[in-house]
Amino acid sequence: MNKTETLDILQKIKNGDISPEDALSKLCTQPFEDLGYAKLDHHRELRKGIPEVIYGTGKSQEQIKGIVKAMLAKGQSLILITRLPLETAEAIKKTLPLYYYETAQIGIIGEIPKPNGIGKIVVATGGTSDIPVAEEAAVTAEVLGNEVVRLYDVGVAGMHRLLSKLNDIIDAQVVISIAGMEGALTSVIGGLVECPVIGVPTSVGYGSSFKGVAALLSMLNSCASGVSVVNIDNGFGAGYLASIINHQKGVK
Amino acid sequence: MNKTETLDILQKIKNGDISPEDALSKLCTQPFEDLGYAKLDHHRELRKGIPEVIYGTGKSQEQIKGIVKAMLAKGQSLILITRLPLETAEAIKKTLPLYYYETAQIGIIGEIPKPNGIGKIVVATGGTSDIPVAEEAAVTAEVLGNEVVRLYDVGVAGMHRLLSKLNDIIDAQVVISIAGMEGALTSVIGGLVECPVIGVPTSVGYGSSFKGVAALLSMLNSCASGVSVVNIDNGFGAGYLASIINHQKGVK
Amino acid sequence: MNKTETLDILQKIKNGDISPEDALSKLCTQPFEDLGYAKLDHHRELRKGIPEVIYGTGKSQEQIKGIVKAMLAKGQSLILITRLPLETAEAIKKTLPLYYYETAQIGIIGEIPKPNGIGKIVVATGGTSDIPVAEEAAVTAEVLGNEVVRLYDVGVAGMHRLLSKLNDIIDAQVVISIAGMEGALTSVIGGLVECPVIGVPTSVGYGSSFKGVAALLSMLNSCASGVSVVNIDNGFGAGYLASIINHQKGVK
Amino acid sequence: MNKTETLDILQKIKNGDISPEDALSKLCTQPFEDLGYAKLDHHRELRKGIPEVIYGTGKSQEQIKGIVKAMLAKGQSLILITRLPLETAEAIKKTLPLYYYETAQIGIIGEIPKPNGIGKIVVATGGTSDIPVAEEAAVTAEVLGNEVVRLYDVGVAGMHRLLSKLNDIIDAQVVISIAGMEGALTSVIGGLVECPVIGVPTSVGYGSSFKGVAALLSMLNSCASGVSVVNIDNGFGAGYLASIINHQKGVK
Amino acid sequence: MNKTETLDILQKIKNGDISPEDALSKLCTQPFEDLGYAKLDHHRELRKGIPEVIYGTGKSQEQIKGIVKAMLAKGQSLILITRLPLETAEAIKKTLPLYYYETAQIGIIGEIPKPNGIGKIVVATGGTSDIPVAEEAAVTAEVLGNEVVRLYDVGVAGMHRLLSKLNDIIDAQVVISIAGMEGALTSVIGGLVECPVIGVPTSVGYGSSFKGVAALLSMLNSCASGVSVVNIDNGFGAGYLASIINHQKGVK
Amino acid sequence: MNKTETLDILQKIKNGDISPEDALSKLCTQPFEDLGYAKLDHHRELRKGIPEVIYGTGKSQEQIKGIVKAMLAKGQSLILITRLPLETAEAIKKTLPLYYYETAQIGIIGEIPKPNGIGKIVVATGGTSDIPVAEEAAVTAEVLGNEVVRLYDVGVAGMHRLLSKLNDIIDAQVVISIAGMEGALTSVIGGLVECPVIGVPTSVGYGSSFKGVAALLSMLNSCASGVSVVNIDNGFGAGYLASIINHQKGVK
Amino acid sequence: MNKTETLDILQKIKNGDISPEDALSKLCTQPFEDLGYAKLDHHRELRKGIPEVIYGTGKSQEQIKGIVKAMLAKGQSLILITRLPLETAEAIKKTLPLYYYETAQIGIIGEIPKPNGIGKIVVATGGTSDIPVAEEAAVTAEVLGNEVVRLYDVGVAGMHRLLSKLNDIIDAQVVISIAGMEGALTSVIGGLVECPVIGVPTSVGYGSSFKGVAALLSMLNSCASGVSVVNIDNGFGAGYLASIINHQKGVK
Amino acid sequence: MNKTETLDILQKIKNGDISPEDALSKLCTQPFEDLGYAKLDHHRELRKGIPEVIYGTGKSQEQIKGIVKAMLAKGQSLILITRLPLETAEAIKKTLPLYYYETAQIGIIGEIPKPNGIGKIVVATGGTSDIPVAEEAAVTAEVLGNEVVRLYDVGVAGMHRLLSKLNDIIDAQVVISIAGMEGALTSVIGGLVECPVIGVPTSVGYGSSFKGVAALLSMLNSCASGVSVVNIDNGFGAGYLASIINHQKGVK
Repeated sequence: MNKTETLDILQKIKNGDISPEDALSKLCTQPFEDLGYAKLDHHRELRKGIPEVIYGTGKSQEQIKGIVKAMLAKGQSLILITRLPLETAEAIKKTLPLYYYETAQIGIIGEIPKPNGIGKIVVATGGTSDIPVAEEAAVTAEVLGNEVVRLYDVGVAGMHRLLSKLNDIIDAQVVISIAGMEGALTSVIGGLVECPVIGVPTSVGYGSSFKGVAALLSMLNSCASGVSVVNIDNGFGAGYLASIINHQKGVK
Repeated sequence: MNKTETLDILQKIKNGDISPEDALSKLCTQPFEDLGYAKLDHHRELRKGIPEVIYGTGKSQEQIKGIVKAMLAKGQSLILITRLPLETAEAIKKTLPLYYYETAQIGIIGEIPKPNGIGKIVVATGGTSDIPVAEEAAVTAEVLGNEVVRLYDVGVAGMHRLLSKLNDIIDAQVVISIAGMEGALTSVIGGLVECPVIGVPTSVGYGSSFKGVAALLSMLNSCASGVSVVNIDNGFGAGYLASIINHQKGVK
Repeated sequence: MNKTETLDILQKIKNGDISPEDALSKLCTQPFEDLGYAKLDHHRELRKGIPEVIYGTGKSQEQIKGIVKAMLAKGQSLILITRLPLETAEAIKKTLPLYYYETAQIGIIGEIPKPNGIGKIVVATGGTSDIPVAEEAAVTAEVLGNEVVRLYDVGVAGMHRLLSKLNDIIDAQVVISIAGMEGALTSVIGGLVECPVIGVPTSVGYGSSFKGVAALLSMLNSCASGVSVVNIDNGFGAGYLASIINHQKGVK
Repeated sequence: MNKTETLDILQKIKNGDISPEDALSKLCTQPFEDLGYAKLDHHRELRKGIPEVIYGTGKSQEQIKGIVKAMLAKGQSLILITRLPLETAEAIKKTLPLYYYETAQIGIIGEIPKPNGIGKIVVATGGTSDIPVAEEAAVTAEVLGNEVVRLYDVGVAGMHRLLSKLNDIIDAQVVISIAGMEGALTSVIGGLVECPVIGVPTSVGYGSSFKGVAALLSMLNSCASGVSVVNIDNGFGAGYLASIINHQKGVK
Repeated sequence: MNKTETLDILQKIKNGDISPEDALSKLCTQPFEDLGYAKLDHHRELRKGIPEVIYGTGKSQEQIKGIVKAMLAKGQSLILITRLPLETAEAIKKTLPLYYYETAQIGIIGEIPKPNGIGKIVVATGGTSDIPVAEEAAVTAEVLGNEVVRLYDVGVAGMHRLLSKLNDIIDAQVVISIAGMEGALTSVIGGLVECPVIGVPTSVGYGSSFKGVAALLSMLNSCASGVSVVNIDNGFGAGYLASIINHQKGVK
Repeated sequence: MNKTETLDILQKIKNGDISPEDALSKLCTQPFEDLGYAKLDHHRELRKGIPEVIYGTGKSQEQIKGIVKAMLAKGQSLILITRLPLETAEAIKKTLPLYYYETAQIGIIGEIPKPNGIGKIVVATGGTSDIPVAEEAAVTAEVLGNEVVRLYDVGVAGMHRLLSKLNDIIDAQVVISIAGMEGALTSVIGGLVECPVIGVPTSVGYGSSFKGVAALLSMLNSCASGVSVVNIDNGFGAGYLASIINHQKGVK
Repeated sequence: MNKTETLDILQKIKNGDISPEDALSKLCTQPFEDLGYAKLDHHRELRKGIPEVIYGTGKSQEQIKGIVKAMLAKGQSLILITRLPLETAEAIKKTLPLYYYETAQIGIIGEIPKPNGIGKIVVATGGTSDIPVAEEAAVTAEVLGNEVVRLYDVGVAGMHRLLSKLNDIIDAQVVISIAGMEGALTSVIGGLVECPVIGVPTSVGYGSSFKGVAALLSMLNSCASGVSVVNIDNGFGAGYLASIINHQKGVK
Repeated sequence: MNKTETLDILQKIKNGDISPEDALSKLCTQPFEDLGYAKLDHHRELRKGIPEVIYGTGKSQEQIKGIVKAMLAKGQSLILITRLPLETAEAIKKTLPLYYYETAQIGIIGEIPKPNGIGKIVVATGGTSDIPVAEEAAVTAEVLGNEVVRLYDVGVAGMHRLLSKLNDIIDAQVVISIAGMEGALTSVIGGLVECPVIGVPTSVGYGSSFKGVAALLSMLNSCASGVSVVNIDNGFGAGYLASIINHQKGVK
């Protein structure tokens, strides 16, 4: 329950625009539209300039279209659709001005803002196979107004690849460290930098990697300080959190 | 071994209609018909007005048809088939009067009874992707004679969506709370209501959701009282249990 | 957020007793007292005749005493303390009128009400070692105003022990089925009765019982309808839920 | 290293037919033929009248044919091929006299012997979906010379179905109890009979059945005596073990 | 429900000694005595010459004494108490003629019968640390009337230790193979013999042995035929099952 | 390898103060002192005003004293010792000016700085038992120069307790959300605020909480954006990360 | 960071060819080429005569081609591509001189060197289904300059098959022991030889083999000395490690 | 079965010193002495100059003494006892010339040989808490005739600590890399060296380290080549394997 909304409702009660009994049942019903299969917030962008996000998995092409149209109708100017398969993207493109990032599986409607964060977000991966998750993080961060530096295939099996990029890493405001298999990259980066490091384990690997569990546990147990972790393959979550940190009002 | 049946057998022995030795081997053989691949109870509907249920998974189209026909032949007037794939439903429709709920993957033969329970059953989901499991629960409850209120996409990431439906939730006789990912919805509902809450974890999610395990553990460990849990994706079980609770003879 | 409380707050705003801005920060602050280490609800008993419950684990003797005294000071007449070790109970007894159920590890302050539920709650266990969990469930149910029938050591290894109690089981309003090891008792009872069955896996067993996991999985996968499950060893949760079901207003 | 074979080798050394140095490198090389991808025993049938078994999984159609032909060439008169897919069976049938049990996924070359065991082997399943595993067990036992009684769909959710077959179960020399989901059937049968019970968990189920793990744990923790367990879905292993037990030389 | 008992009850009904209604509630109540905390069968020894077994874990010293006295009062002449700690044994010895096997943690009251099985039971262990479980199995088998051959510390790390005992192993009627750590002993024995092999994983080991899980999985996946498995550390279960197999009426 | 240090070494090589061959073996040897059992950094405080941290677990009292003395000798003015047991703290106090936080199990040598972060860090817990972990986080943050707001026992089972503190939560620069059992608190807070939320699962709970795993999975799968997670019970890690975020140079 | 490379960089700094500031950002940038999706080392073969390895999984056909071409352009004369699917191999063959090992799923460009190791590497498998992993190990070892002896289908279910190859095993410099299911082969070999044994668990098996976990645990817990383990199905890793051991400079 | 021994037995048969029938039952009985609870090899030291190893866990003080005395009586001059608790060591010291390494929990009887391996074995640990496991590895290697270099507390959280020891690591013949928590040290070392790296996960850590499982998985999934892994905390196994590798006859 958002602070502003709640105050709004309470104000109406005081003004007698609404009775307490009705208020209870109507509390918070304003800010979203009920499509039956989904409930949309229509006020976020206006309030904070942040794009609306649609999580594409488990939604049909028709449901996604329906949600997008309702958002556009309410004046939303930037929409981010994650986990959007190529075919669904192709279908949506026929009727809506969608830009599609194939590797990231992200679709965008609207214009990506100029970077307006504090510093740069570094997105690093252990290997080539981690790139799709990394692109989900990177594109998410870009759409949310961040400058992103991509450092791909810098895993610890060839330490010099990582060390050659030391300047980029040390200058970062936030590092998103993405790795499958044993996930050691995150600990190593955590030991090199002093900014927040967000670990994203990926399901890359085989056998006892258990689809990302080995990397997840490795990152959770990192002995380096300043490291926290999001769900396996959750590039979006990492990009979103990095953006919040990169947009905080800081010390004077 | 049902009480009535056992008494029946015992009565026959007393009357000399059957010898004790024969009784042992024949004990309970009356109430079901053996199709070879399945053993059917033919007496339940007559006795209690409850539909017969066929669990569709792992049964061939021919086996399902065979079971349905044997049931109809015995006078069963309402049959509920769960986990019924679209193709099997289409095939059965050609020879039998089946009504098919596609989202719920449930097929019905016969007429759904008027709601005759104590109150309403609320079926709530955390997200859009949980709807198929929710529909399995809701349709099951409806076929068993309950009024169902559907509250979909009210997960805790947007608390106001749930709070806006507070009246429905508080008025429920039973709440079925269905959620994947972290399953927090169930704890939150459990903390708001005073009626029984049945948690249904779903396999919706990715990575460390482990196909419903995260939600399952979350619900089992709910610190709210009045919560119990059924198997992952077990919409039918939740709907069935909710119906039993909603049909109990209560205090005067 | 309880319905009545919320209405109360809203009413005050309307009457001008409180400004919307203040209301937000004070919303819900009335109904509980902040002891620093715990926040107490002081209004539940008055409203619903239900005892206040203190979960004893992880609380020091001093903390428990402090909570009890604050409750008594507010007029609470019945207090239930679960997971209360013998030594703590002995210490509390010195200054407070505590009655202690040693096997159940439950302490009671106040008078247990007369049974006022719809029917009887059966508490069944697979073996002798499950009795502590069973007593936690049984005493909880009794304190909440239920008549309890105890059927202990009726596990499926000796089927006749269970069948000899068939009448008790069939007459139950709710059955709490408590078992460790393989937990088959719950499925068997679920196949015999038509009322709700609450499965409580216990940590009794060794080796691959994995401290209750085998029983938990067994119960979650029960092929019998009407079964739901609570956490391993959660006798209190089962007793509480059974009491809610046994006190529902029923069909006319 | 079989006793008879070892004595044979040793005898040859003593007779000077072979030097000790050579014996070491040749020890045991006689009894099998090396096809490169597999090493065949060619002496078992002659010695004990037991069919040779080919485990079909992971072997190509050509490999299976090669093994069968080498066996036939050596005079093997009965061959059992497990986990044989329909297509491979069809292909083999073109050149070899194979009889195929489709549900059991077993192919047989040669004539099934008359039952020559001590008593009967009962193969019981909890549900209809467990039948393929049950047929693997039953056909295996039949090919090895046993009379088999099939009791399918007698799970504990409808106890009377099992009790109606009590005579069959009590008369068994060995019971193979096959169940998925919660696997309670095995404990219940273990509590009813006094002969060895072999539990076979199946991967039937969903959600927290974890592809047979719930049933496996349930059976391993059975509180009934006389129960042991084989791997999930291992119908062959159960049928083979049951046959050994049913062919033991017994007390006079 | 035992066949003989059931026939007995049914006979009484026929004779009019009992009404069907009463029969239902009294069905099977005769054969056991209810001590409150336990329900005792008093008829087994008379019927089959088999000792009564008390599972000591989770029972207080007083409960065990109570059960033993009730059994002796009914004429039971041989009682086996498993998982009996030394201190409890010492206390019981003061008033009852108990013989205590310290390594096996088994107490016996009465006289161990002469071996009357078909052949010998071999109890083999991988290491020295597995001996307590092995002794539980061996003593159980001896009390049940079997000749037992103990082969301890014959693990596969020193293959010649096992091979030196080949004659004993090949002559066995049943082999109980007990091992912790990787449990390979069971597969190796399974590959050497043609009799039933009962695997008992033990909780011996450290790290990734996971208290017996590594050995359990190893045994369940044994590629040798004729192997089945009981719970981790379940020496009693293995001894009991081996005895059943060793006492079967065999082929003429 | 810190940027400044590396540049330093490289500069020396260029100046001819050190040969390349020697440089390699001496690279980075300056900044720490080798105590044999530990390698100390002696330059951090001087460079950045950050206290040195000693992780107390697995270190003997003598080792901790040795490390502290070496640090003080080098001029370190603020030392934080985590996971310090009471007894060790008492012993250290005898010779060193240690201040000990018993609940947090943290020892401090030196003076805690004035808060100099951007905003406030909120530390919230689900229950009373989570307080030790919360205090570890809170004291860590305070020692690192942050203002901390403690909100304890605000779990979702009583939603109004959390909502009553809404203002504190919404005003936070970072929220550390600490919960055991099902960990739903973190998702709910994540759905209410727009700042970074650091989830700390605790090992509080029993049965299927699996010592924090249920809470960990719940938090990793949170459907709320802006949430990341640290290891179970890792209060220090959360406090440290929160401090980094709260001290970032922000947008102008 | 390789010793030689580091010295090289340091030398350049000393010679004034590069400033320290530039050196830091350029440190290690020479030895690899950045293709965007991958970073290639171009100096290894020249230095050590070792082939460059491309891990094929998760790389597109175009990416693999790009990497190969860049390597050839730099003068790399031997390239090993692992986990290369047949179709990708066929496509690459059209433009590049690739030799493809279908069973091993390995592609080679260049000429395989003559064996130049200390002794022979034995690659042994438990069954026929383990052969693909074994071939990955064997071909890897051959490409790296080793003589390989293949012993396939020598699992412990038929001990004489293994014993017949005793001479080969005892003569090995290293044994790679590859097995699925229960993985007992590795312990047995470990008990027979005195050279290093590398265990490779395979995902062969079903049910509780859990795709290689049973074999992995079995091997990790091997009671035989000299055994170590690599990841499930990691034939390449085993072949590579065996080659290192087989090429060590040994005692004089 | 050792090659030399087998040849010996076979030779005796050929010479007529033993009949084949007797040979089978006596095969391999010579080389060990049966103490009842353990079977001792008495020929290893004489043949290969390797100390006899006693695994202390799970053996009583009396058993260890008995084994040591039997070994000394047979002329064994060097005995290594692992996992030997301080108290047992103190007791043994009273009658036997034992030298005890307290941190390593290893007892030695006899004189440690001069290092006679190819090169040096580096034993590296991530932290201070890993030292006991490291000492078990280091002392084992020393007793087996190796020069050991200890690098403790060089974990990746402070990369410069590891890099400062680069020369030692690069010069190693074998590296034993020991780490708990996330175990990243092993991957990093594997990426720096070209010799075999043996990873030893330790049970150091808390929460989701799961007593070494996180480190174990991390090491198994290492993307660096040349890495293999032993059981959690298995310092002995690592030291033993490293010694074998360090004593191999090498290329000319």
